[in-house]
Amino acid sequence: MSETIPRVATVAEVRRAIGEVRALGASVGMVPTMGALHEGHLSLIRAARAENDTVVVSIFVNPTQFGPNEDLKRYPRMLARDCELSQAAGADLVFCPTEEEMYPAGFATWVDVEGLTEGLCGRSRPGHFRGVCTVVTKLLNICAPDRAYFGEKDAQQLAVITRMVRDLDMPIAIVPCVTVRESDGLAMSSRNVRLTPEERAEAPALYRALTRAKELVAIGERDAAVLDRAIRDALTEAPLGEVDYVEIVSAETLAPVTAIAGTCVVALAVRFDGSGTRLIDNIRLSA
Amino acid sequence: MSETIPRVATVAEVRRAIGEVRALGASVGMVPTMGALHEGHLSLIRAARAENDTVVVSIFVNPTQFGPNEDLKRYPRMLARDCELSQAAGADLVFCPTEEEMYPAGFATWVDVEGLTEGLCGRSRPGHFRGVCTVVTKLLNICAPDRAYFGEKDAQQLAVITRMVRDLDMPIAIVPCVTVRESDGLAMSSRNVRLTPEERAEAPALYRALTRAKELVAIGERDAAVLDRAIRDALTEAPLGEVDYVEIVSAETLAPVTAIAGTCVVALAVRFDGSGTRLIDNIRLSA
Repeated sequence: MSETIPRVATVAEVRRAIGEVRALGASVGMVPTMGALHEGHLSLIRAARAENDTVVVSIFVNPTQFGPNEDLKRYPRMLARDCELSQAAGADLVFCPTEEEMYPAGFATWVDVEGLTEGLCGRSRPGHFRGVCTVVTKLLNICAPDRAYFGEKDAQQLAVITRMVRDLDMPIAIVPCVTVRESDGLAMSSRNVRLTPEERAEAPALYRALTRAKELVAIGERDAAVLDRAIRDALTEAPLGEVDYVEIVSAETLAPVTAIAGTCVVALAVRFDGSGTRLIDNIRLSA
Repeated sequence: MSETIPRVATVAEVRRAIGEVRALGASVGMVPTMGALHEGHLSLIRAARAENDTVVVSIFVNPTQFGPNEDLKRYPRMLARDCELSQAAGADLVFCPTEEEMYPAGFATWVDVEGLTEGLCGRSRPGHFRGVCTVVTKLLNICAPDRAYFGEKDAQQLAVITRMVRDLDMPIAIVPCVTVRESDGLAMSSRNVRLTPEERAEAPALYRALTRAKELVAIGERDAAVLDRAIRDALTEAPLGEVDYVEIVSAETLAPVTAIAGTCVVALAVRFDGSGTRLIDNIRLSA
């Protein structure tokens, strides 16, 4: 008979549980998620497991990071399965608060990162990163981990949270983890399951386009406009998808570059309107 | 030969010093200040001394809470004296960072509290509370105290910080401390020293006006408009002052009330343009 992973839903309970292991001198790693766990999340949990005495996974579909016309209601929820997967990947505790626990009546405080949040996904998702920053600040304050793990797939989120934690002097290391992909290259995402079979067949074109850009840089191309055209050309292999953005930006500032120099990120977002699914992906390039 | 209080200027140093006492199991109280300490601040330090094993005073004139036309450059600075006063009041450590330490290049993160910051001082000082919330978040994250002490003189600041700490789940108790006054009733403020002698002679009219409102409530007056008129009438005793606001608000939400019910705050701000000094004061009233 296997024991099931402890699952707590209140701030007081998770603080008590973490306080107990802290009192024994344990280090704490945290993986904040919105659930619907896939191999990408599990790789974060495994990384946390390898580096900390105790691993906490939070599962909370954060309403404040969804826009009014976005997919909050349709976002997949599968808590029992997520708890099992978390445990199998090495988690010790799941924190799954309610909306009321996280945003009680009278809630009025918001955390914003300027600049980094304006381009890329920030342009088409106003308020998204304000919701992300606010909920991540809360989760980090509640669990007070030594390290928190985020995937490079959400490149802008990773840059924003890294900046936020540094700017607000939170005593926490933000650990980036490489994007996990399906065998055909599609980046793992909780939203992939919503693609129609036809969309799913086209979706690997996103990563192929990014790979094409990397190949061009490898043979000496530096002009961002040339790379942009090559990427958009490669994305025509996904005719069911509509390009939201293709951007080539500095890895640190996320500001657009005109030529590849230092480390850059090529990021893109494509909407598949048949299923109402928006996918993002990115690749890092160094000149 | 008396030892002088340890004074550190970097985040790393203050964390190390606090970490050392934490490792011994000590509790930590914090008093965030902008220096130019007066009896009001010292009462906060004494309260912290009584309730904690270690007391940290921060002294930082926070530029982000001053508007472009405000008195940042003229704000009094007297660090050596402030360190002596802190030590005499019971502090163990002074944290006095530079602007560069608190706001390094690329700083981009801000904390906002909505609603509570819109009236009272927020109306005439746009951005003020954003600066206050951001620097207090940083200072609390840097020092990680068990308790932080704030004066009731800055009633709106106290309400905003209390809400912020609750909303962001910071594991810190915000302890309010009563306003300390000169013998003539003027609330202690670092800005009082800047008043001209004539303005200083008129300044006790602020507290007399608040006291007049309290007396009226004590004999049964409940109408906020009547109280407002009585306060403004009493403020004519300070003809060198120009009323910025008089507001009667709910103590909890800071929303204006039309009648006294439950606990209310009467708050006012008066500008003395001769010296360019703006004073605030407030009083709590219960029906």
